[in-house]
Amino acid sequence: MTKAALIEQIKLKESFLCVGLDPDLDKIPPHLLQTEDPLFEFCKAIIDATHPYAVAFKPNTAFFECHGAAGWASLEKTIAYIPKECMVIADAKRGDIGNTSTYYAKTFFDHMNADALTVAPYMGSDSVLPFLQFKNKWVVLLALTSNEGAKDFQLSAVNGKSLFEHVLEKSQEWGSPENLMYVVGATRAEDIARVRSCAPDYFFLVPGVGAQGGDLETVVKYGANAECGLLVNSSRAIIYASNGVDFAQAAKNEALKMQAQMSSHVQRFNL
Amino acid sequence: MTKAALIEQIKLKESFLCVGLDPDLDKIPPHLLQTEDPLFEFCKAIIDATHPYAVAFKPNTAFFECHGAAGWASLEKTIAYIPKECMVIADAKRGDIGNTSTYYAKTFFDHMNADALTVAPYMGSDSVLPFLQFKNKWVVLLALTSNEGAKDFQLSAVNGKSLFEHVLEKSQEWGSPENLMYVVGATRAEDIARVRSCAPDYFFLVPGVGAQGGDLETVVKYGANAECGLLVNSSRAIIYASNGVDFAQAAKNEALKMQAQMSSHVQRFNL
Repeated sequence: MTKAALIEQIKLKESFLCVGLDPDLDKIPPHLLQTEDPLFEFCKAIIDATHPYAVAFKPNTAFFECHGAAGWASLEKTIAYIPKECMVIADAKRGDIGNTSTYYAKTFFDHMNADALTVAPYMGSDSVLPFLQFKNKWVVLLALTSNEGAKDFQLSAVNGKSLFEHVLEKSQEWGSPENLMYVVGATRAEDIARVRSCAPDYFFLVPGVGAQGGDLETVVKYGANAECGLLVNSSRAIIYASNGVDFAQAAKNEALKMQAQMSSHVQRFNL
Repeated sequence: MTKAALIEQIKLKESFLCVGLDPDLDKIPPHLLQTEDPLFEFCKAIIDATHPYAVAFKPNTAFFECHGAAGWASLEKTIAYIPKECMVIADAKRGDIGNTSTYYAKTFFDHMNADALTVAPYMGSDSVLPFLQFKNKWVVLLALTSNEGAKDFQLSAVNGKSLFEHVLEKSQEWGSPENLMYVVGATRAEDIARVRSCAPDYFFLVPGVGAQGGDLETVVKYGANAECGLLVNSSRAIIYASNGVDFAQAAKNEALKMQAQMSSHVQRFNL
């Protein structure tokens, strides 16, 4: 997916919502557990209900992997089911030495046909570059994450800047706003402006809105750029809005609520 | 696997060799491509041939994942096939927010029954701690890796130390030499002593010996501690020693050669 195609979808749907698919057998509606493939059936219903309001879906590979080969098959089916106009972000946080990263890239970009993959920066250039060689595919690099542990290393001072700012600066030598975006947590709103000033033209994938306490208005105020530049992810608040037979309707209502909030912002962007 | 059990194996086999399982369909002997599960058949033959000389096996998940659900099934079979006395290190470089890391830990420690998992430190404490909650299971945390990109962030100066030294110091608050070891690349031998001085009692998993240019004698000189404290990994030099029908015998010869080099060192450790 190109950046232009993503922006077109944002404009069309008046939304920059990304729905996180974290299917947990302990949390999904019990009636789905009787089906042959509960992970897929759950995700399918969530995708059907929310795709008119979302421009991206983010399957979290851990929730599939923990069921082994069968879970991996459910992940493949889920990714294949997501409508083509939506960006598929495989949330796998991969990253390894060059030839291994190439295999991970093939896994998610060729085999699964995902549009984007979350990647960890610790191993540096040659762990990230292989993912950037795939046409119309995206690296979503961890910059400033939304968890408590982010402060352990990401906020460490390196030559008068934070480590995450070095990650932002260095990685812009590897990719461009056409194939690289950043994970920027919404839980430390005061930092979002710092990230934006380091990477004015890049898209950010922003987790942590909703269940993790982040606030959409603050994210837009400090994080948006003229082209939007944001994909705001919500997982639990949408997919677990209900665990009854009405779960898909409840998810739809939550997604619609977020889309409605986003709509007025989208109209003000220069798209 | 406990640390005592690992040391017992090192003593018994006079070896601290870890064989890396990176099965690449472009490199494995062509006659195996006719079998139903070439990835597994290749790994099985390598395990059969080398396990008398190795105390650990390290399947690299990327080489299995790139074949999708079928590859994942081959990984499960491969891990299940490794003799119980050998440590299984799943080289997956996972790491995510807490509840997601818990799912990754379940995947590799419960579902697959691996003994250890490589983990990336960038997201900090709550991304690593979930892996340390599993009894007799190990985190192998990336500290100083063997690739060129290691210098991008790992060698950055943070308050007068390198980032990798902060990772070593901070993570010792989370785990102990009984459940935590470190990835320490052999390509920068002069750094191995620095890592050892930061973590005197911990085991290191050392990649980069052989194909990547590292030297065993240097690694032992600067990296060993009284209890050995080293698992030296070799992947390509062993598993791709030949791609003919004699590949297993060739792998055995290479593993034996490394074990013979290691033997004299093991006799000098205090085991």
